[in-house]
Amino acid sequence: MTEIVFESIYRERFPFWEKISDEDREYICRNSYSVAYPRGRNIHDGSDCSGVILVCSGCLRLYMMSDEGKDITLYRLHEGDLCMLSASCVLDAITFEVFVDAEQDSQCCVVSGPAFAAVSQRNPDIRIFALEAAVSRFSDVMWVMQQILFMSMDKRLAIFLFDESVRTGSDILTLTHGQIARYMGSAREVVSRMLKYFAGEGIVEVSRGGVTILDRKRLQKLTL
Amino acid sequence: MTEIVFESIYRERFPFWEKISDEDREYICRNSYSVAYPRGRNIHDGSDCSGVILVCSGCLRLYMMSDEGKDITLYRLHEGDLCMLSASCVLDAITFEVFVDAEQDSQCCVVSGPAFAAVSQRNPDIRIFALEAAVSRFSDVMWVMQQILFMSMDKRLAIFLFDESVRTGSDILTLTHGQIARYMGSAREVVSRMLKYFAGEGIVEVSRGGVTILDRKRLQKLTL
Repeated sequence: MTEIVFESIYRERFPFWEKISDEDREYICRNSYSVAYPRGRNIHDGSDCSGVILVCSGCLRLYMMSDEGKDITLYRLHEGDLCMLSASCVLDAITFEVFVDAEQDSQCCVVSGPAFAAVSQRNPDIRIFALEAAVSRFSDVMWVMQQILFMSMDKRLAIFLFDESVRTGSDILTLTHGQIARYMGSAREVVSRMLKYFAGEGIVEVSRGGVTILDRKRLQKLTL
Repeated sequence: MTEIVFESIYRERFPFWEKISDEDREYICRNSYSVAYPRGRNIHDGSDCSGVILVCSGCLRLYMMSDEGKDITLYRLHEGDLCMLSASCVLDAITFEVFVDAEQDSQCCVVSGPAFAAVSQRNPDIRIFALEAAVSRFSDVMWVMQQILFMSMDKRLAIFLFDESVRTGSDILTLTHGQIARYMGSAREVVSRMLKYFAGEGIVEVSRGGVTILDRKRLQKLTL
């Protein structure tokens, strides 16, 4: 990709773009590169600063991993989303490790971490943009943690869906989120969000009429 | 407290203080109040915006709570620390709920959320300060989550300490953090940090020579 192409992408994606100097814009473009990540490729393993990643197409998955290789999806990034957690050198405050994989074939623009950090030192608007991108993901992460840690909502929902499919003899459950919530003694918003999480993991498909189980094995594993 | 007292406290605690206008400084002081929270008092229950809390003395505890009343300490705030997570109206990106209690008798300065938000809209330096305060806590929270969720490090360490005290017939364990880590097959930094977490909870006391168990009942509860 040429610098002109980066410039046009960043102009569209970065709200601070018009507010910074020509020199800083050129500097960012000169320190950018485009990468095509094939599906399944690990992009960031938490150990060093992989830069600021802007997803142009495809999908990236952020997750935490235990020593034993167990992983928990924190969230996914789609077209137009920015990954700040891979740029620990930009935000000093971030001292934890996350992993990033390409979940689909993905085309990304990557701004080198030190270059982004240098320009953001000079421009409060960039610093605010980067910090807000990080803080907004904080909320997503907290939600996942809270559900899994406290309520075992993933397990409870999996048990409900599994039992219901055994009871009806079908992988297609014609139940609204509100109905599921009432059966489970939970809130509709919680059930909707957890179903979306399951859908993201490819375990179920959610439609207007109900829920379809796509991966029975993984669902059953969650009930254990 | 008078506005002059707030002014002198904020001058010392807020790195942005010199960079904002006289009017904004006055506005913040006028919209501040001082509160003495007795030990054990709940200060924030996640439901509305309690403002930006600056701890002048004492100690606040931030935690998450489940429907069943189980709680997990995320971190503590001491003298000079700022609580941004109680001010969800300042940082729109924060949509999760935390609870804040006074763990000791605590004297705090509270800036009203809307006033702080209004001034930070006009001053990028304040916005950056507030966001950085939030992001730096993100790392603390992730660490706690990771240890508890993945490694069950709290449980593993509790089991080790409990078994060791039974074996030696003493509540005083003369072992270094490094030794404990080696016995447990973990890293010294992880053990040190988890011991500090236990110490914060009043379960153990950590000294140069080793670890003293203070609350045997709670330690045993963690081993289950």
